[in-house]
Amino acid sequence: MADFSITRLDARQPDFDRQLDAVLAFDPASDADIHEQVAEIIAQVRRDGDAALLEYTRRFDRHDPVSAAALELPQAALEAAWNGLAPAVAAALETAAQRIRAYAEHQKMAPWSYTEADGTRLGQQVTPLDRVGLYVPGGKAAYPSSVLMNAIPAKVAGVPELVMVVPTPGGETNPLVLAAAHIAGVDRVFRVGGAQAVAALAYGTTTLPRVDKIVGPGNIYVATAKKLVFGQVGIDMIAGPSEILVISDGGTDPDWLAMDLFSQAEHDEDAQAILIATDAAYLDAVEASIRGLLPTLERAGVVKTSLSNRGALILVEDLDQAAAVANHIAPEHLELSVADPDALLGKIRNAGAIFMGRHTAEALGDYCAGPNHVLPTSGTARFSSPLGVYDFQKRSSVIFCSPQGSDTLARTASVLARGEGLTAHARSAEYRIVESAS
Amino acid sequence: MADFSITRLDARQPDFDRQLDAVLAFDPASDADIHEQVAEIIAQVRRDGDAALLEYTRRFDRHDPVSAAALELPQAALEAAWNGLAPAVAAALETAAQRIRAYAEHQKMAPWSYTEADGTRLGQQVTPLDRVGLYVPGGKAAYPSSVLMNAIPAKVAGVPELVMVVPTPGGETNPLVLAAAHIAGVDRVFRVGGAQAVAALAYGTTTLPRVDKIVGPGNIYVATAKKLVFGQVGIDMIAGPSEILVISDGGTDPDWLAMDLFSQAEHDEDAQAILIATDAAYLDAVEASIRGLLPTLERAGVVKTSLSNRGALILVEDLDQAAAVANHIAPEHLELSVADPDALLGKIRNAGAIFMGRHTAEALGDYCAGPNHVLPTSGTARFSSPLGVYDFQKRSSVIFCSPQGSDTLARTASVLARGEGLTAHARSAEYRIVESAS
Repeated sequence: MADFSITRLDARQPDFDRQLDAVLAFDPASDADIHEQVAEIIAQVRRDGDAALLEYTRRFDRHDPVSAAALELPQAALEAAWNGLAPAVAAALETAAQRIRAYAEHQKMAPWSYTEADGTRLGQQVTPLDRVGLYVPGGKAAYPSSVLMNAIPAKVAGVPELVMVVPTPGGETNPLVLAAAHIAGVDRVFRVGGAQAVAALAYGTTTLPRVDKIVGPGNIYVATAKKLVFGQVGIDMIAGPSEILVISDGGTDPDWLAMDLFSQAEHDEDAQAILIATDAAYLDAVEASIRGLLPTLERAGVVKTSLSNRGALILVEDLDQAAAVANHIAPEHLELSVADPDALLGKIRNAGAIFMGRHTAEALGDYCAGPNHVLPTSGTARFSSPLGVYDFQKRSSVIFCSPQGSDTLARTASVLARGEGLTAHARSAEYRIVESAS
Repeated sequence: MADFSITRLDARQPDFDRQLDAVLAFDPASDADIHEQVAEIIAQVRRDGDAALLEYTRRFDRHDPVSAAALELPQAALEAAWNGLAPAVAAALETAAQRIRAYAEHQKMAPWSYTEADGTRLGQQVTPLDRVGLYVPGGKAAYPSSVLMNAIPAKVAGVPELVMVVPTPGGETNPLVLAAAHIAGVDRVFRVGGAQAVAALAYGTTTLPRVDKIVGPGNIYVATAKKLVFGQVGIDMIAGPSEILVISDGGTDPDWLAMDLFSQAEHDEDAQAILIATDAAYLDAVEASIRGLLPTLERAGVVKTSLSNRGALILVEDLDQAAAVANHIAPEHLELSVADPDALLGKIRNAGAIFMGRHTAEALGDYCAGPNHVLPTSGTARFSSPLGVYDFQKRSSVIFCSPQGSDTLARTASVLARGEGLTAHARSAEYRIVESAS
């Protein structure tokens, strides 16, 4: 490990902010060539529908379905995948699904209204989206936990039709993913992927129905396609590299925190794992654990690159300063590995998910604690939220004016509309003035 | 009016869907040249900060402040604008502000949590955004109602600092806009506009503070800049042309509905006004009202173009079919101008705001009914919601595992993580298994 080093920062140094921003800086690849390819794929699918879908599937997935209809997997295939699971795996998926569902139930938005003295009623109606598309990556990056996390909130919201697309390179399906789709309540599954699947979901083909929103992770082609079809359909956030920030008071076993940092770093070489502590000797102890445990990891190469390039160990004056640094970073995952996490929680404003106390490893949240593992990355927790049931519901304002109420409101609207030079607005309001009421 | 005609459609015709989609089609200008100009402005502001801001303000706004600090308007200027208002206008703005605030209070999200039998606590924390930027157009498109609608929900959410930017072409300020900013509680106002103002809000300069989200309407340069800085900061929706859809049972005075359609059409030549009715003779009556009233309008030219190019009168079999057409259109504004709007409401799934009954003119909602007038356009009500307090709040998941709880969850997480080949995740979870508990 002589060649391995991890950045050390000290928040009490005057130049800290600049140094921290250098550690955080990440420029996502924005490839003009990919943009052009994806735009071309979308245009083809819009023009040629199923024929384009089949052509791209043959070309990119080396998989040759006999017809567009053959792209659809029957529900029986999902059930068979579920029935074929090892009992321990089935039980674990079942537990995870039940806990994700229980948490999601708390997020459901409800309609409300209130009636004013003159009989005017104001409120908000809440309805589920009609149809949602769920993108699931194929091959080795296919995670059943991701299917549960994206599908269950949509079904809890009441979305009547949840359409999953998943590429099956070489024709091979992933039984874990299909089993997860089965218990999550996915309604239809199509074996397509890439930008062509996103385009088909956004615009519809004869075989694939058009959806109202597309969620789920994907590679750069999928992410680019989602950006390009946004507006035509809704999309979830475009995720950056995964991140963890751990705040420690020095009381947690250094091996535990080293492994928590690894669990983030093993995702990929761009993942970011940062530890903040109030004690330099404790940072040394965790670094020693990192050096000791790293060689025992199956994905040691990825972890080493990730920690060397993007990891950091940060010394702070006290937990207040730790909270200030956390709010600046606005991490996807934040572990408060301290004796009294509730005291610290009130100081945290910006974080996707907060893991409280020494026992709440972030990995528990990735799989089965209940809250969603789809979280804002790259500092976007400053202004956005975890994926939730609310992402699959929408609100409509409801306004029901009584004759008296509209009379009163029309007088105010008329003044303001004329002030803005919009006289048809004013006259439309004025028709609702009941002369006898004035 | 011999040269004026408005599209008639019949939903009972087999080709109706295609014809309707042709009426709805709108291709927003996407100008590669504008994109390039805006990207260059953003790059300059990132590089040169205040100096770039001053340079662009001189060039585009013909306004030459002595320094960057001079771009800021003191609160005294806002107060003076408020004190200078005609009493009727001040009273109307006050009423509108109070009603918008009262409605917004109902939208505030609250935190929640629940504790499981083993002591594990799960919940959701809700916090306001730290700092929000509000873009307000200058010149003739400057609407005080828009300041109220964008600013008040942010302040109700508890945003500590709301920063408004408004261009002042030739140095001229709009007293109505400043007065609205005063009663809405805007914290700071800067006299800058265009893509340069958006860039300054997104990245910060010495004088303008960096914000977490930018809201508010603007021209194509502003909209393009918002799209380009999205991710660095949050943005609200990018609005398309304004739309109204009226569903009538034939019982409302045809002049009223003609004026309601005009109130949308007068916004601009791309605005869209559509009427659906169950009776062809009633459509004729409204068309006669349109022809009769059109010459009396101050903005008759704009209205005529808008109605000719994008308006439509649609005949349907019954109100059920009307609801189905409305759900397909997913209009920004939907008037249910019928005897029993509550019966119809339950069938409406996709609409930004719903105006119930004959007395609830859409114009009342634009100014003072209470619900927000910033609404999803171009069919995006299929998957998005009105601007609201919730757009200025964010959620963080909170997970606090008891030692027993983490023991149980770790066993499940370990199985799933190993199933996905993420062994550092599994080992991080396994550290939390308390052997004595097993």
